[in-house]
Amino acid sequence: MIITTSDFDALEKLARVQLATTLPGPKPVCLVGTRGTDDRANLAPFSSVTHLGSSPLLIGMVTRPVTVDRHTLRNIIDTKSWTINQVTRSTYPQAHQCAARYPNDTSEFATTGLTEHTLDGIHAPFVKECPIRYALELEDLIDIPTNGTKLIVGRVTLIDIPDDSLAEDGSINLAENHSVASTALDTYFSITQIARLPYAKL
Amino acid sequence: MIITTSDFDALEKLARVQLATTLPGPKPVCLVGTRGTDDRANLAPFSSVTHLGSSPLLIGMVTRPVTVDRHTLRNIIDTKSWTINQVTRSTYPQAHQCAARYPNDTSEFATTGLTEHTLDGIHAPFVKECPIRYALELEDLIDIPTNGTKLIVGRVTLIDIPDDSLAEDGSINLAENHSVASTALDTYFSITQIARLPYAKL
Repeated sequence: MIITTSDFDALEKLARVQLATTLPGPKPVCLVGTRGTDDRANLAPFSSVTHLGSSPLLIGMVTRPVTVDRHTLRNIIDTKSWTINQVTRSTYPQAHQCAARYPNDTSEFATTGLTEHTLDGIHAPFVKECPIRYALELEDLIDIPTNGTKLIVGRVTLIDIPDDSLAEDGSINLAENHSVASTALDTYFSITQIARLPYAKL
Repeated sequence: MIITTSDFDALEKLARVQLATTLPGPKPVCLVGTRGTDDRANLAPFSSVTHLGSSPLLIGMVTRPVTVDRHTLRNIIDTKSWTINQVTRSTYPQAHQCAARYPNDTSEFATTGLTEHTLDGIHAPFVKECPIRYALELEDLIDIPTNGTKLIVGRVTLIDIPDDSLAEDGSINLAENHSVASTALDTYFSITQIARLPYAKL
């Protein structure tokens, strides 16, 4: 079936958001940890995390103009520091709940029962229950003028993963670490590795 | 285990890329279809597709500064038109092969056996074998100065999905449509839906 722009515009608002956020396909879901200048910790789920480059190691994520990530963006601008924590089969319900509009004086760690994990030299908090996590420093904040969103560009400064989980070739088995995928801000998937293919040649 | 910036920099180049591209978690994998001003069709896999907004419906994707997506970027700049086709359990081997550095006069459709599907009014080709696909028009091309990549911002102009696959609430079941996730440019996952959660409230 064909859905034209006018068909799309005629949908109810929530249905438009549901359909639009399904189009990319299965996406990452990560908890972004920040700590404000008042030392309060904050957690927010992001599904727009993407690799921008390996040398230097740059990761991008998109902030929506409003709602859940306001505190996150403010803390990143104020402190230049954040963590990204891959959400797993045992943490996705708590990660989902972190999207609720808690006031700024409420820590999502306290309300969801996730545990703060701190490392020397890193201002932002990690999530203890998430096995694959890393810290970033703000490299750039790029406006997307069409709709007022921003691309937050971070340089990875430290990676913390389970012992023995890094293979010699640099790979980490995401399925064995129970990382989940998501779509449409409300749907979660477990993943099963079906192939690892050699570099594509002519 | 902790991997510092200097640990990361000491890895072999391929291991650095492998590790860096694993950090976001399970990602989408989509085939981007374009058609040059010479009418030649082109297909390239992208794993950086992300939702930027629902009103208007905007989708972004990141081009690497070199390699596979050079033809894609040139065609998008020349024609303003492209399609995004979600890769499935039956098409990921061909999608992976589209990353090979074919010369510009070679169509990845011809070399991989995927089938061009055209729709009136859409310049770029769709992939017949991919059930969830949509067409975009170039809205903006945003430089990421830190490493020379670009964020391509597209406005969705048409969505083509299987009949009866759109639920009243705007959702499409990605698992039933056999969409796959990927990581590190070489690893593919099937997905199994484990939950769809209600909107998070206080």
